[in-house]
Amino acid sequence: MRHRGALVSMLVNGNQSDRVPVTDRGFQYGDGLFETLAVENGEPEFFSRHLERLRIGCERLAIEFPGNEILEKEAAQICKTVESGILKIIVTRGSGSRGYRIPENARPTRVLSISPRPSFPDDLQAQGIRAVLCRTRLGINPSLAGLKHLNRLEQIIGRSEWNSPEIQEGLMLDSDGNVIEGTMSNLFLVRNGSLITPDLSRCGVAGIMRGLVLEFGRDGGIKIQVERVSVAELEDADEVFLTNSVIGIWPLAELGKIKYEIGPVSRRIMQWLAERKH
Amino acid sequence: MRHRGALVSMLVNGNQSDRVPVTDRGFQYGDGLFETLAVENGEPEFFSRHLERLRIGCERLAIEFPGNEILEKEAAQICKTVESGILKIIVTRGSGSRGYRIPENARPTRVLSISPRPSFPDDLQAQGIRAVLCRTRLGINPSLAGLKHLNRLEQIIGRSEWNSPEIQEGLMLDSDGNVIEGTMSNLFLVRNGSLITPDLSRCGVAGIMRGLVLEFGRDGGIKIQVERVSVAELEDADEVFLTNSVIGIWPLAELGKIKYEIGPVSRRIMQWLAERKH
Repeated sequence: MRHRGALVSMLVNGNQSDRVPVTDRGFQYGDGLFETLAVENGEPEFFSRHLERLRIGCERLAIEFPGNEILEKEAAQICKTVESGILKIIVTRGSGSRGYRIPENARPTRVLSISPRPSFPDDLQAQGIRAVLCRTRLGINPSLAGLKHLNRLEQIIGRSEWNSPEIQEGLMLDSDGNVIEGTMSNLFLVRNGSLITPDLSRCGVAGIMRGLVLEFGRDGGIKIQVERVSVAELEDADEVFLTNSVIGIWPLAELGKIKYEIGPVSRRIMQWLAERKH
Repeated sequence: MRHRGALVSMLVNGNQSDRVPVTDRGFQYGDGLFETLAVENGEPEFFSRHLERLRIGCERLAIEFPGNEILEKEAAQICKTVESGILKIIVTRGSGSRGYRIPENARPTRVLSISPRPSFPDDLQAQGIRAVLCRTRLGINPSLAGLKHLNRLEQIIGRSEWNSPEIQEGLMLDSDGNVIEGTMSNLFLVRNGSLITPDLSRCGVAGIMRGLVLEFGRDGGIKIQVERVSVAELEDADEVFLTNSVIGIWPLAELGKIKYEIGPVSRRIMQWLAERKH
């Protein structure tokens, strides 16, 4: 994270602060949502898409959406001091009395923070990454599916399954054994030139980069299927890549003992994304 | 909550405070556990059992357990000012850098707080409560099953399905349709004099009061089955009751259109609990 000027690294409801009340339902129950955005040249990437996902997430959880205007203003305030970094926006239901019942008139809490971009080796895009298949499964819950909510214990347990720095990601199945996503990324398969990505109507996080790739595929005339994906289909895919707002696109080179080529469809999409961002 | 002396209502890592860092993984990801205890005459009820569950939960999530000694000391400090109330203990993994990976050397955060006992009408134990069957399902995840962890969005969405003060609880099924528990309670059925409670090896919270009732049943020669329970079995039960550390035991009188008697087994267990607490 390269700084330009005085650092404001965190805003809680618009005030410089690094604390939240214990009574905040984000802390009590994980009752909230978040967004993680890449920041380049002081600008959060694909910001309007993140805001729109956050708005929809708030609507689904019946959390009052703080509004684009205030989030844009605070993001600008916090991003202007850095050239490159990660902007994280958390919106929770705010404070309330004890119990799961949604409090009437709860005022949402918004937290914006900026942190350094993770340092991944440069050759991961060129050479592809290594992943493992996690034993930890994702529970099925259509009420929460697609949301980037604050209940992330499944991902934490999944991520704890490997320690080797040679492994960049773990892929997770749902409790029925369908392939869903990585602990911090979405997943695409290429089969006979078609793009396939798991259906996220029962679990998983519908990532912004996933949405962009789907749009690109549609606009670019690539056949796309959003469907249930089995482990056998994953293993038999011609190409596999992962998407995430911070890393962009990572081709998958190895999944356990299985090796994949970085094929033409993955290259075309990486090329398109690189152009789109410049 | 009747007070005796100066009120210390919240301790964060032993200090009077009502705030936690934004970077706490409890806030970021719901990465922690909690316990809710009834306090009577300044004493938390069944404290050693709650501490033991918390210790086991920490072990399962690889969170460093703060230890009985410090939790007992802080609980005494916070409880001595009230006669009656609810003690809540939260333990999180503490602060860490961005990402799901468990930070090395993370220091757990402990938060103890006291709040008033909820006021339920006195006749709920005598007359039984009304419940609904929630549409929201519980995801299946053996890694988290049984734990009272901080990822509680499923319970919040379940609890949001009714507003009527005439309804005290909502019962939840897992994603396969098995009956599991209430949003804030465990569930027991009585059939032909036997006690039946749902198996919680795939989802649900293994409550302290549930454990006490199971022990009582075993000691008292009541036949007990811990097993998968279908909606039909729930509907056909002779008696049904709910358990929770704060409410104790609530007989179920109505589930939607189905009515239950408060039968001899429920009465025997309520009687036993009343004696045990005095």
